[in-house]
Amino acid sequence: MTQRYKITIEYNGQNYSGWQRQPHAMTIQQAVEEAIRKFSSQDVAITVAGRTDAGVHALGQVANFDLEEMKKPLNPFQIMKAINAHLVPQPISVVHVEEVHSEFNARFDALNKLYRYRVINRNAFLTHDRGLAWLLKYPIDVDAMREGAKHLLGNHDFTTFRDSECQAKSPIRTLDRLDIAVKEYDAHGGKEIVFEIEGKSFLHHQVRNMVGTLSLVGRGKWHPKDMIGALEAKNRAAGGPTCPADGLYLVRIDY
Amino acid sequence: MTQRYKITIEYNGQNYSGWQRQPHAMTIQQAVEEAIRKFSSQDVAITVAGRTDAGVHALGQVANFDLEEMKKPLNPFQIMKAINAHLVPQPISVVHVEEVHSEFNARFDALNKLYRYRVINRNAFLTHDRGLAWLLKYPIDVDAMREGAKHLLGNHDFTTFRDSECQAKSPIRTLDRLDIAVKEYDAHGGKEIVFEIEGKSFLHHQVRNMVGTLSLVGRGKWHPKDMIGALEAKNRAAGGPTCPADGLYLVRIDY
Repeated sequence: MTQRYKITIEYNGQNYSGWQRQPHAMTIQQAVEEAIRKFSSQDVAITVAGRTDAGVHALGQVANFDLEEMKKPLNPFQIMKAINAHLVPQPISVVHVEEVHSEFNARFDALNKLYRYRVINRNAFLTHDRGLAWLLKYPIDVDAMREGAKHLLGNHDFTTFRDSECQAKSPIRTLDRLDIAVKEYDAHGGKEIVFEIEGKSFLHHQVRNMVGTLSLVGRGKWHPKDMIGALEAKNRAAGGPTCPADGLYLVRIDY
Repeated sequence: MTQRYKITIEYNGQNYSGWQRQPHAMTIQQAVEEAIRKFSSQDVAITVAGRTDAGVHALGQVANFDLEEMKKPLNPFQIMKAINAHLVPQPISVVHVEEVHSEFNARFDALNKLYRYRVINRNAFLTHDRGLAWLLKYPIDVDAMREGAKHLLGNHDFTTFRDSECQAKSPIRTLDRLDIAVKEYDAHGGKEIVFEIEGKSFLHHQVRNMVGTLSLVGRGKWHPKDMIGALEAKNRAAGGPTCPADGLYLVRIDY
């Protein structure tokens, strides 16, 4: 008798080579799988909803794995504590565990994903948010970025915003939401610009390429309408730069 | 001709032995003074508003120092950039510089200080906020803490909440504000509890001893009214524990 578990994971990806296991680098997947093995003495292979890249963070990554019946059965809260006890002091925490049916698949059952991208707009270097946001020192026109972002909404061929190594079969995706909020960051004019981006699924680097390209609009190097031509070009070279991993968070996945 | 400057400093105190210079440990003061010397070639001694302890953070620490006329004069914004260029990659940033009159004293002219103390209330270990907040795993009654906090407001002898090594001449202080806010921290019931504490000046460890004692009220070990007896005892042994430096921020100083 095996039981499938759905777990929600929060992590600071700063010092990890992304989610997926690699031969010579530490990854989130390896850390979590080792913690599960340590408390359960079972070798598990985790299925994850979104394989985040090196340096990308998560507030609500979701994964699933199976455990065979244990001699001393544990409830979901006890399993969460047991995994976390073996993850500490790494900046990775399981924040929720639940029992799911044996067909649940964190990757294929995901209906919606919410990503957040944090930009700090000020001159001074970051302190508490080092590695946790992208620092832009030049003035940013947020309204222009909002205007440009509208052209990305809906169902499109996102080849322009797709990494050249992206392995998805189709470049067609539907972008359901791209909102940009601004709030005060410090007492001396510094601002935080927060992108919230939602859709069922994304291409490799799509979020970072969209934000990187919109930053050109915010900086005044591009007109908001230039986003239309970039999208229609269906060519990565027609897009702007990939912005750093630092500011990107996988916030929530809906099932 | 010398010019006095008032600077506002933001820092992550996690890996520093506090503000004040020490012979065998790295401090914020040393880092800032060295950065000023590197760009100006002048030896400066900084006067600071609040000497924070090891591990304590600042969003708006204030200090002053004098510079003799430079061959190539710099305006305040250029001075800020010059200091920051020599502070990076340390998690210390000057966020504001202004010219002040030669009598300005960051310590003695301060009229009001605002401290913030961040508590995360959930079971899972911290990830992004490791070292930046105090994790409390047990249930916390915030209303009881608010009730208890009322007894600390106003002018009192705060000996009970004063570190045994505190060097202030008088234990009398006026606490003008102690508010406690609660907000959602994660999608699984985790909460952030934020203390905001204001007054003209504080005794050594006063904020951390007040929050530590209130945590006993929040946990149900103390009745809110027990704060009265603790205060009246005028004895450190009658108070609760000193809470960790991790959650404490010097937010703002008014002049």
